[in-house]
Amino acid sequence: MEKEILVSNVDKEMKIALEKYEEPKDIKRVLSGMRPTGKIHLGNYLGALKTWLELQDKAECFFFIADWHAITTSYHDTKDLADNTLEMMADWVAAGLDPEKSVLFVQSSVKEHAELHLLLSMITPVRWLERNPTYKEMMENLKDRELATYGFLGYPVLQTADIVLYKADTVPVGIDQIPHLELSREIARRFNRFFGKLFPEPRPYLSEAPKLPGLDGRKMSKSYGNCIYLADTEEEVNKKVMSMVTDPSRVRKTDPGHPEICSVFAYHKIFTPLDKTKELEEACKKGEIGCVQCKKELAKNLNNFLVPIREKRQSLLSNPSKLIEVFSEGSKKAREVAKKTMEEVRNAINFLKV
Amino acid sequence: MEKEILVSNVDKEMKIALEKYEEPKDIKRVLSGMRPTGKIHLGNYLGALKTWLELQDKAECFFFIADWHAITTSYHDTKDLADNTLEMMADWVAAGLDPEKSVLFVQSSVKEHAELHLLLSMITPVRWLERNPTYKEMMENLKDRELATYGFLGYPVLQTADIVLYKADTVPVGIDQIPHLELSREIARRFNRFFGKLFPEPRPYLSEAPKLPGLDGRKMSKSYGNCIYLADTEEEVNKKVMSMVTDPSRVRKTDPGHPEICSVFAYHKIFTPLDKTKELEEACKKGEIGCVQCKKELAKNLNNFLVPIREKRQSLLSNPSKLIEVFSEGSKKAREVAKKTMEEVRNAINFLKV
Ligand code: SF4
Ligand code: SF4
Repeated sequence: MEKEILVSNVDKEMKIALEKYEEPKDIKRVLSGMRPTGKIHLGNYLGALKTWLELQDKAECFFFIADWHAITTSYHDTKDLADNTLEMMADWVAAGLDPEKSVLFVQSSVKEHAELHLLLSMITPVRWLERNPTYKEMMENLKDRELATYGFLGYPVLQTADIVLYKADTVPVGIDQIPHLELSREIARRFNRFFGKLFPEPRPYLSEAPKLPGLDGRKMSKSYGNCIYLADTEEEVNKKVMSMVTDPSRVRKTDPGHPEICSVFAYHKIFTPLDKTKELEEACKKGEIGCVQCKKELAKNLNNFLVPIREKRQSLLSNPSKLIEVFSEGSKKAREVAKKTMEEVRNAINFLKV
Repeated sequence: MEKEILVSNVDKEMKIALEKYEEPKDIKRVLSGMRPTGKIHLGNYLGALKTWLELQDKAECFFFIADWHAITTSYHDTKDLADNTLEMMADWVAAGLDPEKSVLFVQSSVKEHAELHLLLSMITPVRWLERNPTYKEMMENLKDRELATYGFLGYPVLQTADIVLYKADTVPVGIDQIPHLELSREIARRFNRFFGKLFPEPRPYLSEAPKLPGLDGRKMSKSYGNCIYLADTEEEVNKKVMSMVTDPSRVRKTDPGHPEICSVFAYHKIFTPLDKTKELEEACKKGEIGCVQCKKELAKNLNNFLVPIREKRQSLLSNPSKLIEVFSEGSKKAREVAKKTMEEVRNAINFLKV
């Protein structure tokens, strides 16, 4: 059902693209990554991390911090890369990713990603990459031309290497990522055709996350400055919630409101207990509650949700070397799997073993 | 002088490209590689290997078998890759490359090439690569379109990684490689601009090799089937020399000949002692020698040159694991240098050390 709701938002082509995948019922190995571009906000949490938390209880999961991918678009300014990577480590573990359950690692610590990327680059036609909607869009936008680097053109190749290196069968993605995954499947097929069937074709796993608007009602995005971060303090959360846009038709607190178009209410549906949410909905519709009071209720519930994450986060960051050690251990585990795959790849292509 | 002769054969643009390099008088570190596409022929020997032999006595040299590059154009058929790599090892050492003097290694054993390739890909504009004459030529040739892979488009990026990974200041190249080296210099400059001056801009070192025609008078090339290989037996050399085209105006042995347009004579100038060469030249011009006799003299001298190489080659190939060990040791040495550079690169870009 949720899947249908999501699909209704996208174009027909995507719908067709989606239809051809069987539902991934027998999930064995999951892979996903995130670019360390800054602290994780609630949109990232609901859009990706929450799905990962579910998946880590039912499959073998590999989650990586995509620090190589991070420089694809921000090569001109990498001074925060190390800090951002550390913050992401803290966000992940604080939010509940468990190194006992999942392999948590850093992409640049597993050089095999770069080796496989290079080998896959040799079999990937340039025109497949030029067809990529993200690339096409960028090429049409003159301002972004500066970003048209070889690495940007080829990031779906790196993504493919990321996935097939672990022979992952399932990749949690947002709907906008479907064309990239489709390309990964094509590249995997082409490799298998030339060198023998080595890689499974990865299937998408769609997150059923409700969309959470930013403070200003637009999509939550770092670049809009409208985010609530997992790392925000109680005061920051209070202040941000108070600044949120609400139903513009409510001038006085006795004006009847429309919760269905109010960002604050979208948050209540996620962070406030169901009965309280219903109560607020009624009160708003009848003009029996002011927005300030409604927001205070949200701020309280949001902070309730964030307190344990925030505290764990701080504790983790008070000892960075221990936190790094967690990912260093994970990277070691990832490397073992990657090394095995690369041996098979090298044999399949017929490199001399030196 | 030789350089001028070479330059006169290329277009004006190249001439200008060449003029801007200072002569590499203070050669410190040399890097060059060769794709293992088959046995080495005399054209390869004179065009590259001979220059390397000179260089290994005057600078620190890194020479690598470019097995990753080899699959750029032959990804659809890699079954001979391991054999070709081994044959190249034998050719190199038999021809005189000395693992005590030079670092002889295999590209795919030094994963840092792939890592640096990936990082450089992020800063290299696609349009720089599309400008590459080799790529442009291929795109114009419909038959070759199938080869327009991402890896092919980006092979100058991999070449740049190969070079700057060792901070090589000097790269022996053929004149047709100048545009690639120019691109490597541009990429190195761009890296230095973004992340601090880490890489020297590599300078070309032009081989002053005389051109050696193939058996049929065309350029010696594997694909024409007109080569004499270092590995050829005495009988093969005799047979091949006998099949060589000569001055077509000589019908009878008393007809006066024109050694300057005869392929056989081009070989004499290289493989026959100077006084004997002069004697043959006179005799040919006066119609006092037959082409068969002239060819017999060449076959003898060519075999004299090839005997020690051929014998060493056979002895090396009788114990492949020992030969591979030589390159394995070399790869270890290369890796040490590469690791050091990559640590600097990672620090410069600001990756978190995990
Ligand atoms: S009362 Fe609450 S739900 Fe209603 S408009 Fe105000 S903030 Fe939105
Ligand atoms: S005699 Fe020798 S140099 Fe003269 S044409 Fe014959 S092969 Fe060539």
